[in-house]
Amino acid sequence: MAAKKLNAFYAQSGGVTAVINASACGVIETARKHKDVMGKVYAGRNGIIGALTEDLIDTGKDSDAAIAALKYTPSGAFGSCRYKLKSVDQNRREYERLIEVFKAHNIGYFFYNGGGDSADTCLKVSQIGESLGYPIQAIHVPKTVDNDLPITDNCPGFGSVAKYIAVSTLEATFDVMSMAKTSTKVFVLEVMGRHAGWIAAAGGLASYKGMDLPVMVLFPEIAFNKDKFLAKVDAMVKEYGFCTVVVSEGVKGEDGKFLSDQGLRDAFGHAQLGGVAPVIANMVKDSLNLKFHWAVADYLQRAARHIASKTDVAQAYACGKAAVELALKGRNSVMPTIVRTSSRPYKWTVGVAELKDVANREKMMPRDFITEDGLGITRKCRNYLAPLIQGEDYPPYKSGLPQYVRLKNVPVKKKLKTGFALK
Amino acid sequence: MAAKKLNAFYAQSGGVTAVINASACGVIETARKHKDVMGKVYAGRNGIIGALTEDLIDTGKDSDAAIAALKYTPSGAFGSCRYKLKSVDQNRREYERLIEVFKAHNIGYFFYNGGGDSADTCLKVSQIGESLGYPIQAIHVPKTVDNDLPITDNCPGFGSVAKYIAVSTLEATFDVMSMAKTSTKVFVLEVMGRHAGWIAAAGGLASYKGMDLPVMVLFPEIAFNKDKFLAKVDAMVKEYGFCTVVVSEGVKGEDGKFLSDQGLRDAFGHAQLGGVAPVIANMVKDSLNLKFHWAVADYLQRAARHIASKTDVAQAYACGKAAVELALKGRNSVMPTIVRTSSRPYKWTVGVAELKDVANREKMMPRDFITEDGLGITRKCRNYLAPLIQGEDYPPYKSGLPQYVRLKNVPVKKKLKTGFALK
Repeated sequence: MAAKKLNAFYAQSGGVTAVINASACGVIETARKHKDVMGKVYAGRNGIIGALTEDLIDTGKDSDAAIAALKYTPSGAFGSCRYKLKSVDQNRREYERLIEVFKAHNIGYFFYNGGGDSADTCLKVSQIGESLGYPIQAIHVPKTVDNDLPITDNCPGFGSVAKYIAVSTLEATFDVMSMAKTSTKVFVLEVMGRHAGWIAAAGGLASYKGMDLPVMVLFPEIAFNKDKFLAKVDAMVKEYGFCTVVVSEGVKGEDGKFLSDQGLRDAFGHAQLGGVAPVIANMVKDSLNLKFHWAVADYLQRAARHIASKTDVAQAYACGKAAVELALKGRNSVMPTIVRTSSRPYKWTVGVAELKDVANREKMMPRDFITEDGLGITRKCRNYLAPLIQGEDYPPYKSGLPQYVRLKNVPVKKKLKTGFALK
Repeated sequence: MAAKKLNAFYAQSGGVTAVINASACGVIETARKHKDVMGKVYAGRNGIIGALTEDLIDTGKDSDAAIAALKYTPSGAFGSCRYKLKSVDQNRREYERLIEVFKAHNIGYFFYNGGGDSADTCLKVSQIGESLGYPIQAIHVPKTVDNDLPITDNCPGFGSVAKYIAVSTLEATFDVMSMAKTSTKVFVLEVMGRHAGWIAAAGGLASYKGMDLPVMVLFPEIAFNKDKFLAKVDAMVKEYGFCTVVVSEGVKGEDGKFLSDQGLRDAFGHAQLGGVAPVIANMVKDSLNLKFHWAVADYLQRAARHIASKTDVAQAYACGKAAVELALKGRNSVMPTIVRTSSRPYKWTVGVAELKDVANREKMMPRDFITEDGLGITRKCRNYLAPLIQGEDYPPYKSGLPQYVRLKNVPVKKKLKTGFALK
């Protein structure tokens, strides 16, 4: 008697991106191609929470066309979550529940699509075969706009944010260049990146050989020095008439405190949350008396599938596909990676990393990617970043809007009598 | 003896847009086609300031290819300015100087590309033939993201911002939809529009038949009512699990004060400028205890040529072209307009308006474009807006970035011995 085919569980975790659904598409399409050896793909509604609460989605209920449309749809089609599993020792109950759900639905493959925290969760799940005696193959699919996973050349999701920030910085800098004579002279753009400055670095791509623009970058890796910063703004405005400052949300002062944390109070004395962009802009105004504008890109940057990098989309899809292939080769506790084999022309293949080498390690900007003054990117950084924003991959449009797909997300009938209370 | 061909002066005024250069392209290309009757096109460096200071640019020094590239390059290629001429009575010196410069360079056509204030400037210039005896034909080329000029169906520049805001709202709403289970439930996007809510209204397009999304819009035309607003956020989050709020920078409270003007002070008591988005977001947190994110699009929205509306680009070009044709027909003190002849399918032609009917009149959102509760757009508004964002018109890319052009901007040799001190 042939062994019963095992089903797969797929879930999205953490902050979503413009291309995480392209990875989902890679997982589901590849599983569909291997129907002879892999059963159904069940997605967790809202990530791992879907597994814990037995809230599974039958991806088989969506057509090939709908699944293909995931490749050009931003956000997490099945819902994501911010929920970190503790260790087996600390919360055995959660792992036992996962096994209960996996058993009930004949799940033998666990695909977890996320960043550093999620790699840690995936690693823990990969170990329950050994620790709790339930055979599961857990494969992590890399995803994070922060680009802070180790080993892999870059992280799916990053290339598209980088492209958005590079294009937006270029466009806004052209704008301020037009206005500088009588109006705005300094434009400040706040971008994501609480710990690592990769996204801010992408702003530096807006100025390049043949397109000399005064763009400054503030990284979380470099303690903010107000005097040096203002001196550079002043110098740039004197030379060019204007400048653009791309600032990471996570920039800290020399005291180690977030620059955005200014203890703002409204007229009634209530604490107000602000971004770092207005703080920087106010500094420019108070000290140099220059007219400014500021923007905070926030979710717009990571959701901007309309200007996704073609390279990024291809890599996100390839990682999803590779995850299924690794599973079918019997691998456990691994993550597909992007391996750069050449920078010019950019060539890459898909490799594999052990999850124990990935989890809980953050990859910061190397010091030699940042100019000596701490306010720009080096040629080495440019060579690394430039290929990642290559190529456009436009979604289809109808009536002026991208035709993003919403799946049916049909629930799988529950088999367990017990529920599960999330902590 | 044939009359000497008259030269043309072209200038960009006020806040720039993604397509003002497409109008410049229309002016210059059309003038080049009529070389037999129209002389050179001189552009003002930094708008009207270029005329006052005799800082003219010879657009003839740029190739046909460079001029054609203006069609897909955002910002103001010759520099813009915020500088309003007073009336002839109040500042005769400025008008006399203009005439001096026009005479010196044999300028008989004045094309001014701007919004409401600029239409007023253009009107004043159009009258100097009569008031000061210098024959000039002044034609205004409409441009403003604010969409607040009267008579014309819409203003070149607006359609592209509207498309950017509609697409960004759709994308960010997909993002928050993915995160809502355990994280962000309310996303706030601040958009331009100090007096008129047209840009904010475009956010409402993100939700449509077949794509039901909880998107709320806050207009400057409607006094902000905190209780009604919070009740609607609460209701939307209860029904959908999340919501998006698109808010005009110019929203005012019932006291008539800008909502963004909260008298913010930092920990040292210094006044801080903030946007309205964080104010709204803090309200949501304080009153409903919901997790939020906020973004301020600022210049990104009006510079976003990468996602320009094809309709808008075509109309911007058509207005530039029509301005030259009107001049050659001997018209003065007029502005080409967009005339909507049908909404479905959208059809338009170019008409003409008298400047005296355009200058200093702001077109606000009609009340019946706003839902009764003041927090959304009506079907009538949707029918008006939808055609304006139709079609994509992507710029060419190289190495992942749009190939925007920077012109040579070769100065015209000065002929006057005197300078001019700007007030």
